[in-house]
Amino acid sequence: MESSVAALRTIQEDGEAVLILDQTALPREARLQRLCSLEDAAHAIRSMQVRGAPLIGASAAYGVALGLHCAADDARLALVLSVLAATRPTAVNLHWALARMQAVLQPLPSAVRCAAAWQEARAIAAEDTAANAAIGQHGLACIRQRLETLNKSSLNLMTHCNAGWLATVAHGTALAPVYAAHAAGISVHVWVSETRPRNQGLLTAWELAQAGVPHTVIADNAAGLLMMQGQVDVVIVGADRIAANGDTANKVGTYLKALAAKAHGIPFYVAAPQSTIDFACSCGQEIPIEERAADELGVVTSPVANPAFDITPAALLTAVITEHGVLPAQQLHQLRTSLST
Amino acid sequence: MESSVAALRTIQEDGEAVLILDQTALPREARLQRLCSLEDAAHAIRSMQVRGAPLIGASAAYGVALGLHCAADDARLALVLSVLAATRPTAVNLHWALARMQAVLQPLPSAVRCAAAWQEARAIAAEDTAANAAIGQHGLACIRQRLETLNKSSLNLMTHCNAGWLATVAHGTALAPVYAAHAAGISVHVWVSETRPRNQGLLTAWELAQAGVPHTVIADNAAGLLMMQGQVDVVIVGADRIAANGDTANKVGTYLKALAAKAHGIPFYVAAPQSTIDFACSCGQEIPIEERAADELGVVTSPVANPAFDITPAALLTAVITEHGVLPAQQLHQLRTSLST
Repeated sequence: MESSVAALRTIQEDGEAVLILDQTALPREARLQRLCSLEDAAHAIRSMQVRGAPLIGASAAYGVALGLHCAADDARLALVLSVLAATRPTAVNLHWALARMQAVLQPLPSAVRCAAAWQEARAIAAEDTAANAAIGQHGLACIRQRLETLNKSSLNLMTHCNAGWLATVAHGTALAPVYAAHAAGISVHVWVSETRPRNQGLLTAWELAQAGVPHTVIADNAAGLLMMQGQVDVVIVGADRIAANGDTANKVGTYLKALAAKAHGIPFYVAAPQSTIDFACSCGQEIPIEERAADELGVVTSPVANPAFDITPAALLTAVITEHGVLPAQQLHQLRTSLST
Repeated sequence: MESSVAALRTIQEDGEAVLILDQTALPREARLQRLCSLEDAAHAIRSMQVRGAPLIGASAAYGVALGLHCAADDARLALVLSVLAATRPTAVNLHWALARMQAVLQPLPSAVRCAAAWQEARAIAAEDTAANAAIGQHGLACIRQRLETLNKSSLNLMTHCNAGWLATVAHGTALAPVYAAHAAGISVHVWVSETRPRNQGLLTAWELAQAGVPHTVIADNAAGLLMMQGQVDVVIVGADRIAANGDTANKVGTYLKALAAKAHGIPFYVAAPQSTIDFACSCGQEIPIEERAADELGVVTSPVANPAFDITPAALLTAVITEHGVLPAQQLHQLRTSLST
């Protein structure tokens, strides 16, 4: 990341409060927002001031800490966890972070829970940063391999939505390999799809512009044509929840890109930390799909359907890039075994 | 069509001028615009005040008539044809209509060319109306067949962009079967994709609302999920140019929907009059793809690519619904033979 970006962070502590970069104001304005309470944190997640599965997880963890300031008895802890759990349904990192906070805090006396919550939230944030840095390096190896296969010196990469540093505590998931390649002196150009209805592609464009990475914004509809024209060498997207069988929930529209990539023999990677894998969820059909407000599509007087995510079947994924390495989607269960031993 | 709609027409004569419904003002406002000159007609096509392949063809024909008011010698005729030909590159109906006007007018003495141009434009408009009515009936048969196959009494149909009466002189192409089904008392619900970047889906929603046809607007990105969820029974889209081998240029994003329909075994029809088939074009690769202005995507400070169309390979089409019947895309050449004999 360039120095102009380094000063901005998606989430950081500020005394007994938390400072977030309000992503609903981007790319218009880089505005910091102070979260002081459980309600502030829940609102920030629900309204997508913070967004992206890994960042939602970290924000929820800090939300628990904020929520335990006034009281930290069992009833309060249960309330705090349930309020945060209800903010958004699809990203599993939210539930993963809350389960982890509960596991740590529940056995402790009320008096030390708040301090312990801050400490655990800090640990989650630090781990996310480290995981994404590792994803960047593993993804960089995929990029180098692809360039070698194509015998090219520069890469056209396509992504969807925003899975950059804005979607995480740092580095990003899908964009971590891009930043790693850029830092390694590899020429990489990114096709950034607008990502209707909320246009998170413009967040990706803003990030890439800040970092000096060449990129081009397209309408989501243009992805198939570009692939047909040979203008896409690889696709990397993030994930909101990966089922045990590798089926992946990500921003709506991901599935269409995966189908097109398959049709044209273009490698299609999902980049996500292990915390995004939900081993309790056997397949994509079990993943709840969040339906968001009609007005996200603008002023439409007709009825609107607005599912925020879709499911990409494991069979369409070349591999999942995790902090532990690059795994075929069908072999994610290995990760479960290796982690539990 | 409901009576409230019948009063509005996409294009009609008004003395020595032409009245169009300015589609850049829709769905906000139903505003009529008077075209009095070649320049007015060229501007209306270029700026998409009139749009949709069949309507572009008819508008260009009327544009020739308007352009020959002041003079109609060979030089003027050539100029008029070339100005109109340069307005938009992809829709072949434009070139088809201009070639037809030239074939009729060139042999005539200058003095009668203007009157003949009005007459031929009128004929083109009338033929488009008749062709689309026939497409509606042939498409209705496809809809009835699909309902029978599924053993359902109501149909969920998906379309893309606007290929309704707004895109033609009357009836529409992709929506002609919808209106025919609605008129026949068949329960049909239409998934209307927004169609970024210009949101022509809102024109479709406006049309359907006027006609009382149930419909739901979605982001283009949602098409794959809806198909995966079994919420789409059939897809019908229009076309801007169909190559001799059946490869079809239509609004960008069509290809992604066709790939998803194929993945889920959902019939995918292209509805278009014979004038949209370009037998001089052997395959999709030969079809020029119009690149439109970056600002169609809104305020984006990054570089933008904005191809307006994409190519759907013939292999993804169930059939093409024409005024002459429903043909597998690979058998369109039969139409050429039958028409030339």
